[in-house]
Amino acid sequence: MKIFVLGGDGFCGWPTSLHLSAKGHDVTIIDNLSRRNIDNELETNSLTPIAPLGVRLKTWKEIAGNTIRFVHCDIAKEYERLLQLISEEHPDTFVHFAEQRAAPYSMKTSRQKRYTVDNNINATHNLLCAVVEAEIDPHIIHLGTMGVYGYGHTTIRIPEGYLTIKVETEANDTVELDILYPANPGSVYHMTKTQDQLMFYYYNKNDHLRITDLHQGVVWGTETKETKLDVRLINRFDYDGDYGTVLNRFITQSALKYPLTVHGTGGQTRAFIHIQDTVRCIELAILNPPAKGERVKIYNQMTETHKIRDLAAMISDMTGVPMQYLNNPRNEANENELYVCNDKFLGHGLKPITLERNLIKEIKLIADNYLHRCDHTKIPCVSFWNSERMEKAARENDAMVEEQKIAHTK
Amino acid sequence: MKIFVLGGDGFCGWPTSLHLSAKGHDVTIIDNLSRRNIDNELETNSLTPIAPLGVRLKTWKEIAGNTIRFVHCDIAKEYERLLQLISEEHPDTFVHFAEQRAAPYSMKTSRQKRYTVDNNINATHNLLCAVVEAEIDPHIIHLGTMGVYGYGHTTIRIPEGYLTIKVETEANDTVELDILYPANPGSVYHMTKTQDQLMFYYYNKNDHLRITDLHQGVVWGTETKETKLDVRLINRFDYDGDYGTVLNRFITQSALKYPLTVHGTGGQTRAFIHIQDTVRCIELAILNPPAKGERVKIYNQMTETHKIRDLAAMISDMTGVPMQYLNNPRNEANENELYVCNDKFLGHGLKPITLERNLIKEIKLIADNYLHRCDHTKIPCVSFWNSERMEKAARENDAMVEEQKIAHTK
Repeated sequence: MKIFVLGGDGFCGWPTSLHLSAKGHDVTIIDNLSRRNIDNELETNSLTPIAPLGVRLKTWKEIAGNTIRFVHCDIAKEYERLLQLISEEHPDTFVHFAEQRAAPYSMKTSRQKRYTVDNNINATHNLLCAVVEAEIDPHIIHLGTMGVYGYGHTTIRIPEGYLTIKVETEANDTVELDILYPANPGSVYHMTKTQDQLMFYYYNKNDHLRITDLHQGVVWGTETKETKLDVRLINRFDYDGDYGTVLNRFITQSALKYPLTVHGTGGQTRAFIHIQDTVRCIELAILNPPAKGERVKIYNQMTETHKIRDLAAMISDMTGVPMQYLNNPRNEANENELYVCNDKFLGHGLKPITLERNLIKEIKLIADNYLHRCDHTKIPCVSFWNSERMEKAARENDAMVEEQKIAHTK
Repeated sequence: MKIFVLGGDGFCGWPTSLHLSAKGHDVTIIDNLSRRNIDNELETNSLTPIAPLGVRLKTWKEIAGNTIRFVHCDIAKEYERLLQLISEEHPDTFVHFAEQRAAPYSMKTSRQKRYTVDNNINATHNLLCAVVEAEIDPHIIHLGTMGVYGYGHTTIRIPEGYLTIKVETEANDTVELDILYPANPGSVYHMTKTQDQLMFYYYNKNDHLRITDLHQGVVWGTETKETKLDVRLINRFDYDGDYGTVLNRFITQSALKYPLTVHGTGGQTRAFIHIQDTVRCIELAILNPPAKGERVKIYNQMTETHKIRDLAAMISDMTGVPMQYLNNPRNEANENELYVCNDKFLGHGLKPITLERNLIKEIKLIADNYLHRCDHTKIPCVSFWNSERMEKAARENDAMVEEQKIAHTK
């Protein structure tokens, strides 16, 4: 199958590209290298020493004998180039990762808010437009987020995309409507994914595009079967306050013996998935495309849920590293429950990698190999959701953070 | 009150600016003149001879003694300029019309689809970002559309923005959720307004912005009390297949004795409002701002609903001009019902201008004064929603359109 991986140099995109190439697919990466450029902007770096993309691809050719092609293109800006490429090549499948994906980054200042909206919306819309204009019928797979549903206080089990509701009519009877689960984004980043949903809904309805939207949980872990084959294939691992996902930050902190920083009460419940399961899910989505005329297919791409403080406590128990509660820079509920349907991927044969059994391996991998690359000043979260959160944190955190730094350097 | 009218040179923006200035507000128009530039692109023009904006403003100063200031700025592109302006001036209210507003234009080709998404999303998001960054607390009023709700087959009475639904929980009880009425856009243009809703929802939730979203019906008519004061203040009147709204197109066609072109069965039911009521509604929205912390206030800005074929029949009866059924270039239901709540504006004292009593005046205004400016070739709708609609129309319409042209020139 001819597959274009948009954003194929990123944290999920790179292992996905390798996995699909290993499975015998003809993979082309389209990327603008934005993730590496944002490292420059934030003056941080992957904890793992990722190779330049050219080296990655050359290594893969050496090891697996497969060619992955790279096209350096910004799909949010270079529409004509994208159109020409897909008009000539007629890919069977697109896997679309080409969006700014960090909630804290999307909340830093107007610059990052505006970039996130402009990039994510135009990237997705250009892809949909180009597919219509090229008159091809590929399967478009998009990486969404569990965050489109939001994290309220309620105990509704989150369905896979659609909710059936009953509404009264003028004739005093009741109709059933199948609606997109009501969107409740928690950051500018999450907001763009809720806007993406509407574009998928519309282009599916109007142009019969075949689309799968994967609402992914928080990804943890670093390596997949293929990235482990050679150090030059290693995947990126972010530990900084903007791009590090919560569990990867805890992994880094525990390896460093740096206190596990829990925001607020840690009562936030989130959904999780290992990076190896991410690439497997994408393969399963490719193997199960929607039929022509079928509505957008939505999966919840997650395997387990946990409260943040429970995760921190589990890691603290495993490692002896203490927990540290900090003010929450995010504007979100202190406590929430989260029940999620994920029957569709399980039905396709997904066998989840569990946190409890595998977390310690990840910690050892980091502790044994890459800790010397860590810049401790990048660990705190410094993106505040709004002025109240910033003021509250400024008042109360300063002392705590100082204390903790002193304790750590002792 | 200091009011910034974004898009204040357009069809709704101009009469709104005059109305608010007449009521004693300090009005600044911010506009990039895009509507006039799109006339150049489409090689068409307003049927009414609109004056350049400089002439409009000079005339208003002469007649009313009031100054309306004009800032030539593209708010979707010139963020820093917008930010500086509002940081210095602290407007009390924004009225945001600065979006591409024609559904057929938004469906022409990828160029117009992409422009509509890029312009509308970035214009709205830049405004929200700038208000947060400037740390001001204005009331933001946005022109939405009834089209965010869509035109399904159901007979649900459309509420003003929010729908209360009941959902079962894991604990086998039921919770009530107040959700945005499920979005069902019918064009790329309408899609952008559903995406706007999510931005308003988010910035209201996270930054407590005070926002009113006006879901407007199809606007008809040309003149308001203020635009009638001098020919140099005249409002634009679009009759072309892209920007002409259905009723204004019927008005033009009947004045021309050109057959009233009904798309499909004409069984589409739509909501309508006269341009004079538009400006009155905006004033009422300004006078009734949401409180700090209140959710986005949503009004349905419409006064009556009609099926398209009933309107055509009414005008045909009044004028003797025959109806002509054409294939529908739009991908929409042939027939739909539409029940709409509009209690909020009526409660604020709106006294609607009715179609039945006022339509003939509008037809006479056009027929007596501006028919010589009409380019007949611009009347047919030539934007097709998708390839099927285009092919169907190509097969069946050609003969009909030719017939009609011949009949008309005889």
